[in-house]
Amino acid sequence: MKPNKQTEQRLEVLRHSAAHLLAQAITELFPSTILTIGPATKEGFFYDFQPENNFIQSDLPAIEARMKELAAKNYPITHEDISKDYARELYKNNPFKLELIDGIPGETVGLSRQGDFYDLCRGGHVPTTGDLKSIMLTGISGSYWRADQNNAPLQRISGTAFFNDKELRTYLMQKELAAKYDHRKLGKEMDLFSFQDEGTGFPFYHPKGAFIINKLKDFIRNIWTNNGYHETITPAILDVALWKQSGHYENYKKHMYFSTVENKEYAVKPMNCPGSILIYKQNLHSYRELPLRLAEFGHVHRFELSGVLHGLFRVRAFTQDDTHMYCAPEQIEAQIVSSIQTIDKVWKTFGIEDVHYAVSTKPANAMGSDDLWNIAIDALKNGLTKAGKEFEIYEGEGAFYGPKIEVTIHDSMGRSWQCSTVQVDFFMPQNFELYYINNKGEKQTPVIIHQAILGSLERFFGIMLEHFKGHFPFWLCPTQIKVIPITSDQSQYAQNIYSALKDAGFRTELDESNEPLSAKIKVAQMEKIPWMLVVGQKEMEASTITLRHVTGKQEFGLSLESILEMGRKENKV
Amino acid sequence: MKPNKQTEQRLEVLRHSAAHLLAQAITELFPSTILTIGPATKEGFFYDFQPENNFIQSDLPAIEARMKELAAKNYPITHEDISKDYARELYKNNPFKLELIDGIPGETVGLSRQGDFYDLCRGGHVPTTGDLKSIMLTGISGSYWRADQNNAPLQRISGTAFFNDKELRTYLMQKELAAKYDHRKLGKEMDLFSFQDEGTGFPFYHPKGAFIINKLKDFIRNIWTNNGYHETITPAILDVALWKQSGHYENYKKHMYFSTVENKEYAVKPMNCPGSILIYKQNLHSYRELPLRLAEFGHVHRFELSGVLHGLFRVRAFTQDDTHMYCAPEQIEAQIVSSIQTIDKVWKTFGIEDVHYAVSTKPANAMGSDDLWNIAIDALKNGLTKAGKEFEIYEGEGAFYGPKIEVTIHDSMGRSWQCSTVQVDFFMPQNFELYYINNKGEKQTPVIIHQAILGSLERFFGIMLEHFKGHFPFWLCPTQIKVIPITSDQSQYAQNIYSALKDAGFRTELDESNEPLSAKIKVAQMEKIPWMLVVGQKEMEASTITLRHVTGKQEFGLSLESILEMGRKENKV
Repeated sequence: MKPNKQTEQRLEVLRHSAAHLLAQAITELFPSTILTIGPATKEGFFYDFQPENNFIQSDLPAIEARMKELAAKNYPITHEDISKDYARELYKNNPFKLELIDGIPGETVGLSRQGDFYDLCRGGHVPTTGDLKSIMLTGISGSYWRADQNNAPLQRISGTAFFNDKELRTYLMQKELAAKYDHRKLGKEMDLFSFQDEGTGFPFYHPKGAFIINKLKDFIRNIWTNNGYHETITPAILDVALWKQSGHYENYKKHMYFSTVENKEYAVKPMNCPGSILIYKQNLHSYRELPLRLAEFGHVHRFELSGVLHGLFRVRAFTQDDTHMYCAPEQIEAQIVSSIQTIDKVWKTFGIEDVHYAVSTKPANAMGSDDLWNIAIDALKNGLTKAGKEFEIYEGEGAFYGPKIEVTIHDSMGRSWQCSTVQVDFFMPQNFELYYINNKGEKQTPVIIHQAILGSLERFFGIMLEHFKGHFPFWLCPTQIKVIPITSDQSQYAQNIYSALKDAGFRTELDESNEPLSAKIKVAQMEKIPWMLVVGQKEMEASTITLRHVTGKQEFGLSLESILEMGRKENKV
Repeated sequence: MKPNKQTEQRLEVLRHSAAHLLAQAITELFPSTILTIGPATKEGFFYDFQPENNFIQSDLPAIEARMKELAAKNYPITHEDISKDYARELYKNNPFKLELIDGIPGETVGLSRQGDFYDLCRGGHVPTTGDLKSIMLTGISGSYWRADQNNAPLQRISGTAFFNDKELRTYLMQKELAAKYDHRKLGKEMDLFSFQDEGTGFPFYHPKGAFIINKLKDFIRNIWTNNGYHETITPAILDVALWKQSGHYENYKKHMYFSTVENKEYAVKPMNCPGSILIYKQNLHSYRELPLRLAEFGHVHRFELSGVLHGLFRVRAFTQDDTHMYCAPEQIEAQIVSSIQTIDKVWKTFGIEDVHYAVSTKPANAMGSDDLWNIAIDALKNGLTKAGKEFEIYEGEGAFYGPKIEVTIHDSMGRSWQCSTVQVDFFMPQNFELYYINNKGEKQTPVIIHQAILGSLERFFGIMLEHFKGHFPFWLCPTQIKVIPITSDQSQYAQNIYSALKDAGFRTELDESNEPLSAKIKVAQMEKIPWMLVVGQKEMEASTITLRHVTGKQEFGLSLESILEMGRKENKV
C-alpha cells in the first residue's frame, strides 16, 4: 500500500461512504437520533450524532451488524442537487443540518440516497453499499458540534473501512503491532527518554536516548562531510524583524515562541533558513564556490496544541538535519540527483527499501513566473529520473516559494511516513537580496535548495524505535555486546574478552552477577543488547566464544579475532 | 602573577592610591576641577571629574608627569576619621562629595591626606606616594555621576598602576599582544564565527568555527565516557514553576528570557541543573548506582546588557560542558580527586600547565549547618591535597548552597581566566526532594556536585583562539594538512598523497593552483594550516615528502608512512 494519491482519494471516498452507511444503520436502529456530519479521516471515518439516549460500547456490535446487512443489500448510492428550500423542509427538525444548509453558498445543496436513507452531502461515494463490506466500528467518544465545547455535546462513533477483508486484517494486525511497539512504551521500558509536565512537548533524553541521538548526528554529519556539506551553528533566538522579513512572522506566527528583551521582540527559531542566510550574507561569494551547502542540526521550537502532541512523533521542540544549498540555477538538477542518491542511501542503511518519491507542483498562491517554475519542476523531475526513481506528481501541492520532492518511507509495519524533503526556493534569495558573482563578474541571485534527510531527529527516533521494535542496529546501540561468563570460573577469561572489546572501541558490558545463565540471558535480552558473548568452561578451554544474538540465533566456537572482525563490519555504515 | 587573593588585594590598594595621586595632580594643574570618586578596577583605576573645561587627550602626558613628580616627593599617605560636619564644611562647594557624605552611615567619615591634598575616602592606601612610581594614564572618556545618564555628565580619566616598572612593561606587552590576537579579529580573518544585529550577543558559527566547537564537544564527550559520565539532553525551555522551585526565578530573573504559551509562562534555561534533576527523578536510584554522573552540553541563555557583551568572552547564549554528579555524602572526596585529575588533564591537553586552585568557603547568607559545610569543605580540601594540588582559601566566597573549587588558568599571554568549577550542593537535592535508597533500604538525600571543565564552550573557544594566536593544535584544526605540488609535473604524485591522507581520515586539502610555491605557502600560512606537504621533482623521484610546519620549520625526506604515523600521534588527545 503506497501512499499513492489516487489510492488515498479512493479510500477517502470509500470511508466517507461508510460514514453514511453508519448513519443509515443508526437511523434504522435509533430513529430519534439527530444526524450531524460524517467525514473520512486518516485511518477511517466517524459520524457525530445527537442521540436521544447515549450510545454505549455494547451497542456497537449490533450497529456494525446492521451496517453489514445494509451493505449486503447492495443499494445503489445516488447523488442529486436539491433546492435549499426543499432541504430545509427535509431537515426542519435538525438544527445542525439547517445550520449547514445556511453555510453552503449558492441556491442548491447535495443529497445522497441509498435505499430509504438520505443525507446532506457534497458527493463522492462508492457506487453501491455493496462496496462497503470490509468495515468495522472502533469506538464511541464524546465530541461537540463544530468541535467547540460551547456548542451542543454530541456522540462520535468511529470506524474504518477498506476495499477488502485482507486489507482490513492487515490494518488490524498493524494496529496491534503498533500498540505493542509504541515508541512511548519502548522509550520508557528502555529508559531512552521521557516527557514531563515541566516542559509539555519537549523531550528529555536519558543517557541511552541521548547516545542514540548523538550517534544519529554523527551518522548524518559523516554523510554531510562526504558530500561536501559544511556544518554551521546559528542562534536559537533571533530578532522578530528577521522573521518578518522571512515571512515566518506573517505565515507561522501562531506556532512561534516569542521573548521580549530590552524592549526588543525576539522569536525562538521555528526554522533554520534565516540563520543560514545570515551566514551566507557574511561573505562575498563567487560562482566557483557554488553550490555552497550549509548544514545545521537546527533545534527548532514550534508550538502545537497540547491535544495533538504525540510522543516523539509530534513535539514542540525538535532537531532538524537541515541543509541549505545555495546554487546557480543551472546546478539544481545535478544537486537533485546527488540529494536523491544520498537520501536513498540513508534509508537503505536503516533497512528501508520501500521509498516513494513525488514532485509537488505550482500551487494557486505561488510566487514567481511559470517559466521559473517550469525550469525548477523539470529539474526535479529530471533529477529523479536520472537517479533512477519513479515518482508521482502531486499537482498544485508545492510551497508558495517553489516546487518540492516529498519522500515517503514505509516501515516494517507497513505504515508510511513522510520524512525527507528537497525543496527549491526562489523566494528567500530574492527577499534577502542574496547574490553571487557569476563568471562574467556580475551579481546574480542564487537558488536555495532546502533539504532534510531524516527530517526531525526526534520523530525519526520514534519511527525507528517502532520500526526496529526496540532492536536498533548494532552500530546504533548504546550497549552493543554483553560478555556473560556461565560461572565465576570463567570470570578472568570473560574479563579478558571484555577488555579486548572495550579497547577495540565496542560498547561492551560484563555480567559479573552470580545469577544462572538463563537469568543473565533474559536480562540482556530485555535490555535489547544485540550480541551476548557466552563463555563457559568449554569455551575457555578451547579459547573460543559462543555468540548468542538477541534473536536467539547462536554461533559456536568463534575466536575473539573473528568476533572483533564481525563487530567492525557491523559498525561500518 | 597568580590570581592570588592577597596579591589582588594589594594591587587594588595600590591602584586606589594611584587614583588619589591622579586627583592630586589634577587639583594642582586644574584647581577648579570638582572631584567625585576614584576606584580601582580589574585592570587599573579611574577617577571621575567635573572639570571647568573638558580635558583633552593631549592633557594626559602633563598630568602623568605631574603624578610622577608627586610620587617622587614620597609624601606619606595618612588616614583619619573626621566628623561629618567638618567634612561638609570641607566640601561645601562639591555637591557630589556632600551627597556621598550623606550616604555614609554613622557620624564620621574617612579622609586621606598626602601633602596638601586630601580626599574623602574609606581608607586602604599604600604608605607613601613613593610606592606609586609604576603608573600610566590610558585614556579619557565620558561618564555620569553614579553611572546614571540622568545625572551630571563627568569626565573619566583612566590609568593603571603596578608594583614596579617590569610588571607595567609586561602588562603593556600583553595588551599589545591581546589586541593583535583579539579573538574577534582572528574569528573574522579565519572565517570562524560572526556576530550580527539580528541576534545581539548570540554567536553564529561559520563552518570552520562549528567544526572546532564540534571537535571540542567530541573531546569532552570522550572524557565523559572514560570517566563514567552519561550524556543527557534536556529541553531549552521549561515551565517557570520549575525555576521558582529551583530559586533561579527569584535570584536570577533579570538574566532570563521568558515566553508565554497557552497562558503558561516558560523560561529559556539559564542553567541546566533543573533539567538534570528532572531526569534523576524519573527513576528510583539505589546506592549502587552512585555516583550517578549526568552530563550535558547545555545551551543556556543569559541576558546581559549590550554594553558588557564582548565577542565570545561575554555572550547572551552559550554552551556549558555541565555535569551533575549525584553522590552519597561519603563519595564527595573521591569524586573531587577524580574531578581535579580530569580537569588537570584537560588543561594540559591545551598546553596550559599553570593552573591555580582555590576553595571558596561558607558565605554569610549560607544555608545548611556548619557541620555539613565543614564536611564538604574538608572533602574539597582533602580532594585537592590527594590530587597533589596546592590551593588558596577564598574565605566566605562559596555559593549560598555549598562550597566550591574555582580553577583559574593562565594563558600564553599571562592572563588569567576562571574556567573550571566544582561545586558541592546541599540545597537543590533537598529542595527537589531527591533521594536514593541506601544499603539499609532507607531513603537518603544525595549531594549534587556541579562540575564544568571548559565552562562556556564559547568563552573557551575565544580564550584558546587568543592563547594559540589562531594556531590551534593539529587535532583541532578544520584543515590539518595541505599538499602542495611545486609544479604541475608533481600533480599526480601530490594527488596520491592527498588521497592516502584523506583515506586515513586526515582533513586534507590539495593546492592545485598554478601559483608559484612561495604564494602557495603564503596562502596556507594565512589559513593557519599546521602542516604543508611540499612535493617537487626531487621528492617525487625519491618518493619522499617535505613537511613544512606553519612555524616555518621544515623536515625533509619523509616517507608517506612516517607522515601518517606522525599525524596519528598528533591526533591522539
